[in-house]
Amino acid sequence: MGDPRRDAQGEKLAPKAVVGRVSLYLRQLETFQRQGHETISSSLLGAALTINDAQVRKDLAFFGQFGYPGIGYRIEELRTELRRVLGIDRDWPLALVGLGNLGRALLRYRGFRTRGFHVVALFDNDPQKVGQMHDGQTVEPIESLADIVPARNVSLAVLTVPSDAAQRVADQMVASGILGILNFAPVPLNVPASVSVLAVDLSVQLEHLAYKVQNTQGGISYIG
Amino acid sequence: MGDPRRDAQGEKLAPKAVVGRVSLYLRQLETFQRQGHETISSSLLGAALTINDAQVRKDLAFFGQFGYPGIGYRIEELRTELRRVLGIDRDWPLALVGLGNLGRALLRYRGFRTRGFHVVALFDNDPQKVGQMHDGQTVEPIESLADIVPARNVSLAVLTVPSDAAQRVADQMVASGILGILNFAPVPLNVPASVSVLAVDLSVQLEHLAYKVQNTQGGISYIG
Repeated sequence: MGDPRRDAQGEKLAPKAVVGRVSLYLRQLETFQRQGHETISSSLLGAALTINDAQVRKDLAFFGQFGYPGIGYRIEELRTELRRVLGIDRDWPLALVGLGNLGRALLRYRGFRTRGFHVVALFDNDPQKVGQMHDGQTVEPIESLADIVPARNVSLAVLTVPSDAAQRVADQMVASGILGILNFAPVPLNVPASVSVLAVDLSVQLEHLAYKVQNTQGGISYIG
Repeated sequence: MGDPRRDAQGEKLAPKAVVGRVSLYLRQLETFQRQGHETISSSLLGAALTINDAQVRKDLAFFGQFGYPGIGYRIEELRTELRRVLGIDRDWPLALVGLGNLGRALLRYRGFRTRGFHVVALFDNDPQKVGQMHDGQTVEPIESLADIVPARNVSLAVLTVPSDAAQRVADQMVASGILGILNFAPVPLNVPASVSVLAVDLSVQLEHLAYKVQNTQGGISYIG
């Protein structure tokens, strides 16, 4: 795979914060487009997100030269480029593992579907849940990962099982060929270097909010 | 309030990523303590979280001098200090606004309660939901924020209403005296500079995961 900090073309990979902001730029460009705009300046794009224009230009320059002097960005062109950069110019079939409260909430989270993420497989080990239907999908036992992940061409999975099961289930995910895990269980996972894990611990985010409020920091931060 | 990047004592505020890792260190220290350890080295603490020891020492040094030569960190002492740093050496009464799937899932999220975050008020504007009981709490109409937030001494709120209602509800939160908002609605919020917002857009996190997998980056990242 080469240096994991560089992609297949040897380009430098963007830092986490930049990638998170690119997602926000993309959402804001779509809002402007719905409002009838065809071009937009870095300062208007930034102002809508409380990000300064120098930061906007620097973030986008990471991926290419998109602006036109005296015009700004052509929205449709920049949208296409950013979708390609993020890898969402294609559909990503998703597996959702763990049909508790959080899993069921995420299954209905509209934001996933509209960004090209389609849940194509549901897994749980609770005998009461296996066989249930949710949004046209049948809940399968977790041991079926090995068959279903390759058959449905799944590479990303959302993990919403209890903490004490998380590592065991992650091992089964990796063995089945999953390449990326969005982990909601508040425990660190050990996975091979070829597999990506993004850990989302919702109490970490509340702790961070408490830190900001305690220090009267104010302002807006984006997590992602 | 002075410079918003500095706290009341004029100390420099820690970057977002450092605060996120402090939450993880705290969790890992508690795990070591449950296993019977009384002291721990930066390298063992880091190894458990796949963070290198130089990074651990640098992060902790941001908040003080905690290590002892030849001993490492005294776990109980470091726990106490980190809880104070994060502001979770006290209880934070929370309001939860929006009792849809995600709101109900978060209400039962065990991680909140164990970190000192207690949901003390529930709000929704759906007439079918107002008056319902969840975990011993009655769902109140959102207009009651103005009375209940000061009465129950609430400063943090979790916002899980639909996108098109989010700004209006955030305005009501701010007017009621809320100082920090954990925003799950995938829209940016405009709030006064004295109010902190942490935005959690779960599809941003999936896009980031897609970016990592597409670029075969691998490895583990923590969001928070």
